[in-house]
This record gives sequence, structure tokens and C-alpha cells, in this order.
Amino acid sequence: MTSSDMEQAESELQDLREEVAETTKEIIKLVARRAELAKRIGEVKSKGSLPIDNEKVEDALLEDVLRECKRLGLDQQLGAKILATLVKDSKKTQRAQVGGKVQPLITPMVMMAKATEIEKSGKKLIRLDVGEPDFRPPKAVLDAVSNALYSYKTYYTVGRGIPELLSALKTYLAVRYNYREAAENQLIVTPGGRFAVYSALATVASEGDSVVVIEPNWPAYKEGLDYIGARAITIRTTMEEGWEPSPERVKAAIRPNTKAIILSYPANPTGKIMERGSFREIVEIADDHGLTVISDEIYNDYAYKGCPTILEKLPKRYILTSSFSKAWSMTGFRVGYSLAPAETSARMLKALGLMITCVPEFIQRGAVKALESVDEVSHNSRVMEERIDATTAELEKIGALELVKPEGAIYAFPQAKDPNFDSAAFAMELLEKKGVTISPGTGFGDYPRCFRLSLGQPQETLSAGVRKIGELLS
Amino acid sequence: MTSSDMEQAESELQDLREEVAETTKEIIKLVARRAELAKRIGEVKSKGSLPIDNEKVEDALLEDVLRECKRLGLDQQLGAKILATLVKDSKKTQRAQVGGKVQPLITPMVMMAKATEIEKSGKKLIRLDVGEPDFRPPKAVLDAVSNALYSYKTYYTVGRGIPELLSALKTYLAVRYNYREAAENQLIVTPGGRFAVYSALATVASEGDSVVVIEPNWPAYKEGLDYIGARAITIRTTMEEGWEPSPERVKAAIRPNTKAIILSYPANPTGKIMERGSFREIVEIADDHGLTVISDEIYNDYAYKGCPTILEKLPKRYILTSSFSKAWSMTGFRVGYSLAPAETSARMLKALGLMITCVPEFIQRGAVKALESVDEVSHNSRVMEERIDATTAELEKIGALELVKPEGAIYAFPQAKDPNFDSAAFAMELLEKKGVTISPGTGFGDYPRCFRLSLGQPQETLSAGVRKIGELLS
Repeated sequence: MTSSDMEQAESELQDLREEVAETTKEIIKLVARRAELAKRIGEVKSKGSLPIDNEKVEDALLEDVLRECKRLGLDQQLGAKILATLVKDSKKTQRAQVGGKVQPLITPMVMMAKATEIEKSGKKLIRLDVGEPDFRPPKAVLDAVSNALYSYKTYYTVGRGIPELLSALKTYLAVRYNYREAAENQLIVTPGGRFAVYSALATVASEGDSVVVIEPNWPAYKEGLDYIGARAITIRTTMEEGWEPSPERVKAAIRPNTKAIILSYPANPTGKIMERGSFREIVEIADDHGLTVISDEIYNDYAYKGCPTILEKLPKRYILTSSFSKAWSMTGFRVGYSLAPAETSARMLKALGLMITCVPEFIQRGAVKALESVDEVSHNSRVMEERIDATTAELEKIGALELVKPEGAIYAFPQAKDPNFDSAAFAMELLEKKGVTISPGTGFGDYPRCFRLSLGQPQETLSAGVRKIGELLS
Repeated sequence: MTSSDMEQAESELQDLREEVAETTKEIIKLVARRAELAKRIGEVKSKGSLPIDNEKVEDALLEDVLRECKRLGLDQQLGAKILATLVKDSKKTQRAQVGGKVQPLITPMVMMAKATEIEKSGKKLIRLDVGEPDFRPPKAVLDAVSNALYSYKTYYTVGRGIPELLSALKTYLAVRYNYREAAENQLIVTPGGRFAVYSALATVASEGDSVVVIEPNWPAYKEGLDYIGARAITIRTTMEEGWEPSPERVKAAIRPNTKAIILSYPANPTGKIMERGSFREIVEIADDHGLTVISDEIYNDYAYKGCPTILEKLPKRYILTSSFSKAWSMTGFRVGYSLAPAETSARMLKALGLMITCVPEFIQRGAVKALESVDEVSHNSRVMEERIDATTAELEKIGALELVKPEGAIYAFPQAKDPNFDSAAFAMELLEKKGVTISPGTGFGDYPRCFRLSLGQPQETLSAGVRKIGELLS
């Protein structure tokens, strides 16, 4: 390149940069105008007590934007992201005008914090809030962790997990699920199923994207999407329909910016197990639309009818998340895992490397032993089935409640017959007057009439808790 | 509200929504035009082999946008975020045109993965890459963890940490740092210092914000900012100036969207300890500009001259992060902590609750015992000082290298005299020909002539490693 060529390039660059600066300023001007319009909409809504969220309007905007992107040859992801930023700002403005109507949700974690605070003062509570089994972790696991500790397995490991655990997981998937295809670069050992789920969401969805979730469900899905800036498209199922979502509704929920669908059966909090046929249909719908199926199979060992797993017939894009927490009663060990195509897995690993480095090696050694402890899993599962039977019967005797008997998992999710029942208020009253903690249904979706009981307590505690619930309701 | 009022509100809303949709489409049109300009800039740069990143141009754009926001009454955070989205997209476009020139960085974690892979094949390496001491964790810690395990401290705890550890941390800060103001709602027990740092960054900065970092430094700061979508404004220090950043340069680096500055002394990888006077000046500058000081004090117990800590005189906004990893040689326990004003701490806790739930209780019980194990910390610190002395002397004897003697931490960071030295290539050659692993300087900033040796090995291993480095260099 000659020096006159260089000069010409520099001057060309200068012109283009000025144009970029001008265009940027024009964009900001329009953004300001849009913000002004949002404010005026807020005023009208505020006067008319109209709701801030309007899915249809949002969907129409998204369609508009994506169509424009296509027409103009602009990256649709970029368009969707900018729209998400604008919509979020509009809602913030409107919410501020309508006033502080947003009540903080009482999720299981919020309830746990509250209950722990009360227990500090010495008061005894019946804790039916926390989603963890009361079983003891396998003795072999304790021994393995302790031995590893005294053998100084106390240094960093690679992020993905120690080879022994990855290999044990491969064997486990082969024996337990007849799935023999897992490779080590598809597995990741995570600090709990929670991190597996978070990194799955963060890997498949960005700001401006959306993910289909079926409600009621574990609040961490929506919280994770919120944190990422992605939108949860919720499919609301009801007790009256037996908590069954139809594949048609899943299909109808898919938007042009939808990247994934989350399935989790047996379900938290309903104990629902989806029909295998529906599960497969949904997986096919995901394939047809290029979506990732995130299947959270943490309760798979607490299933009292045939429970479909994503391993039976993997979709093109998938992330399986699971954990040692529930089946082996190892909640406090914080160890779980994920399985995904190697490339997806590599991207998930980045979040873990950035935030955590690795799961403690001595805990990973314990997890290896857990995979060999099948008797404990059978025992835990059997006991939980007895509790589901007994607790369902007891809850059904309370005239004010109705429920669909859980087919799995470790919860009961009754619904009050009173259409105006406020489960958040009820939970607080139950805590204060009866010393029993439950999780209000609003923590799992739009279910003010429902509440969740965790069955992670001995039957006599569960019975005592249910009795007190009955007393307060009558 | 009468029904005709309602009708009027609905029709007003309808009009406003149409205007919003029109404005949105106009924004997208301009974004597409801007993307087109970015592409043309990419073409010119590609032809002229000009660099893609241009801080001055970016700064000018930011100033423009913020000025426009002010003039139009638009939220500056929103303007900065939209600009960040646009700039990121432009760079992506230009990078794709200029071609795959970006080499993946060899960070310490990347090197660890590589070395572990080689070791699997049975080959013995001299591992000077991983930043972890080789000392054994205190016996009292092992016993406490094991006892807690067999006492079934194996269930969920509240996210912040068990009261016993929070209380022990308060006592520790009072005794060790004479800081008596810490309240329990200011502390968080984290899975390692890494998570404390990530949640600090995610709490103070969002997409479109910037944070000042002083280079060379631990790669996790920049990686975390990247993950969040915030920009790292780097202050490059050099060996020639003794790795000392001047407060004036820090002040000059602050942009209108700057939210925080990260300090970390003793520094990784240089072992630099900032002068107390400079440290205080920088803290004051942060206060003057409303910035949060994130002080990562993980190496504070490895300091061989007076090391300033943020606890001496807290700025208005601060986050202290630290860990049990280095001082007690507990890397593989993954336990650290943060201290911040209660409100900041509450926001940091959200990330932990969402992703992790809590640190295993049995590990937290071990951490309580660690805080009582002061002899081990003194021992580790003393040994490390000897290694710094010996290794510095040995490195100085290699004619091709020069270095500033570390004043703390657990590393040496020599620089090759050859101005064209390529430490990434050297590190790979050293691994292949000599079986020694080091971390190239490019992992810590723009330092291709430097590399980091971790002193977390017995002196004879260190000496053998340095000898082999000398052999390859001569």
C-alpha cells in the first residue's frame, strides 16, 4: 500500500465514521422519542388501571422487527436484542408510573431464609418448604469424601470434572438408562443441578431470545431467563387438566426468537409425569423448529409410573441436567451434571470456568461412590412413594382442598377450592399461627390457589403438618 | 371510569402503540444502515490492515450518545447499553471481514487443561502454571470437614452462609485487620474467590458500562466483564516502571459510564504491592467519581512489605473479595467470601442464590476452623518468601530475562530482554521440549515478552523448572 493509498483509506474511514456517529445520534433520538411514547402509554394505562404486560403487542412488535431485519439484511438476533432492550425500558417506565404494585414472590428459597431466621430464635417449625429429602446420604459417599479429603484431594481439578467421575457417569447412563453414547467431552460436573440449569439457559439463550417453559415449575428457570435478559414464554397448565400440556400448545407458543423448551418430569411442584407420547411429540416439535430441549431430570428416580427421558431418543439439540441432590439425598454436597453435544458442552463449560473453576475433588470422589449406591436410591424412592400415598390421602380429607395425586418427585401441590384463596397470605398465617412452612403456589407460576408441600420429612411430621393446615383451613 | 372513558383510553392506547411500532421500525432501519456502514469500514480496514479496536473512536461515540441522552432526557444507562450493542455488532462484522486473526489466549486455566491432558498419558511435568500453593490444608480443617460430614451437615443452608462462619469471619476481620464494623448482612460465603469476583462485577456493572482494570492482572476480571457485556478500560503498567500505576492515569481512564475500579494487591502475576499513598489516592478518586472499588485481597497473607487493604479506610462504595484458597492452601475446597455494604451484598447474593444455592455446609465448617489456623498461614507465607528470594535470584542469573522482585503473592513474572519474544510460543516449546508448564504473559494483558511462574511447588522443583527455562532460552 502506498502512502497516498493510506491517506485515501484514512480519509474514507473518517467519512464513514462521521456517518456512523450521525446515524448513532439519530438512533438515540428515536429511542428517546420511543421512551416518550412509552411514558404516555404508561399514563393512559395508569388512568385506566390497564395491565403493563401485553404479550400480543410484544409479539406483534417482534414480528415487525424480525420482518424488517429480514428485508434489510440485518442480523435478526441483533434486532431482537435491541427490541428487548427497548421493551424492557418501556415496561420499567410504565411500572414506575403505575406504582409499586409488584409484590416480591415467596419462592422456596425466600421461605427457607425466613424460616431459618425464625428457627435461630429457638422456635421449632414443621418445615415443609425446602425441596430436599430428609434421607441420609449413602455411607459409602461420606467415607469416600472423607478418604479423599485425608488423601489431599484438595487441589484444583480441570473444570469439566475428574476423569473418574466422568467415566462413572458414562457407565451410570449406560446401566441406568441404556444410553451408551455419552462421551467425556459431553459431560460436565456442576456445583448442583442449579448451575447445570443456569449454564444451559445462558448457553442457549441471549438477551432478546425466548424460551418455552411449562408452568407450574421450579422458579429457577424463569429467574435464570430473567437474569440473562431472555423472555420466558409460559404455557400454563391447570390442575383441572391434570397438569398436562398438549403438544399443540407448545407448538403454538414458539416465537421466531424462541431458542429452547424446558421439560422437567417428574415435575416440581406437581409430581406430574408427562405421557411418553406427548413428550416425544414435543421433542419432535423442538427438532422441527431447531430448538434445544433442556430436560431437567433431577427427579427421575422418584417416578411411580413410566417416566420419559430425553435419553430414549435424543433430539438434535439437547441439554440434559441432573443432580445427586435428590436421588441420593446429597443436596448439601452441591454436585450435579449435564450432558449435551460436545460443542454445546464446551460453551457451557465457559460459565463454570469463569465463575467456579471446578467442583471440589473430594466431593467428586463422593459422587463416584454415589453412582454405585443403587440400594439407597431404591430405598429413598420407595419411602417417598409411601409418603405420597399417605399425604395425598390426608390432604384429600381436608374439604377445602383438592389435588391430583403426584406421579413422582417429592412434593404435593394441592389447590384450594375457594377461588379467592391467597396462598401467599395463607403461608404467612400458617407460619405464624401453626409454625408450619409451605411454599405458596405463586412461587411456581400464576397459582395463587395452590401451595407446595415438600415430602422431605418423616411421615409423622408430614401428618402433623397436614393436620395443622387442615385446622387453619377449617 | 365510564365505558366511554374506557373506549377513549383504548383508542388513545391504540394510536400510541402504532406510533411505537413505527418508531421501532425506524430504529431498526437506522441500525441496519449503521451495520452497512460498519461493513464498509471493515472493508477499508481490511484493505489497509488497520486495527479494528479504536478506543478513541469508541470514547467519542460514547460521549456523543451520553450528551444526546442528557439533551433529550433519556436514561443514560439505556443509551450506553444500546451503543454497546451496536459497537459489539460492528466489531463482530469487521472481525469477520478482516479474518480469523484472533488467537485464543493461553490463560492459566487453558494451560491447566492442556497439562492435565498430557499428564493423563503418564508423562511427568514440572507444573509451574497453576496458581495454587502446594502446601497442605490445615489438619484442623480436614478434621472439621470430616466431622461435619459424619454429623450430616449435608443439607442446604441459607445462601449467605452459616451463622457460625459469618460470625467467625467478623471476628477474623476484627483481629487480622482491626476492622470491627462488618455486619452479617454484609458478608457472603462464596464458592471460591472467583465467584465473589464474578458476582461483584455482575452487581456493579451492566452491558454498556465500563470498569477500570490495571494490567497485568488475573484474567478472570476481563473475562467476567466480557461475559457481562461491560468494557474493561485497561491501564497498562510495565516492568520498567516497577508495575506501578499512577493515580493520575487511573483518573484519566475514567469514562462517563465507568462504574468501578478493580484493585488487587499483592498482584497476580507481578507480586507488586501498590504504595499505600497511591492506593489511598485511587480510593479517593473512586469516591470523587462515585465508583465502586472492588478490592481483591486474596494474596494479602503473602505480603513482604506493608500491603494496603481497603479495610483501612473504606470508600463509600466497595466490595472486598477474598478466599481461603491461597493463605490456607484450600484451593480445592472452593470457598471464599465478600464484604460489601448491605444493599450491595443483597444484590450480590442474588447471583449466588440463582446459580449455586449455597456452599456445602461441611466445607463452611472447615472454613470456620481455617480462620483459627493462623500458624499455618504464617508458615505458608514464610516458605513463599524464601521461594520468591531463591527463584528471583535464579531467574536473574538467566541472561535473557529480567524481572522486578515480587513483593508478595505466589508468582514470578519475568520479562525476556528480546523485544520480539513470543511467550505463548515459548510456553508451548517449553512444554514439549522440557516438560515444564508456565503461563504466557498474554494471558494477563498485552505482555508477550513476559511469562508467569507459579511458586506453588517445592524449591527443588522450582529450581529444576527455572534451570530448564534457562536451557531453552540459551
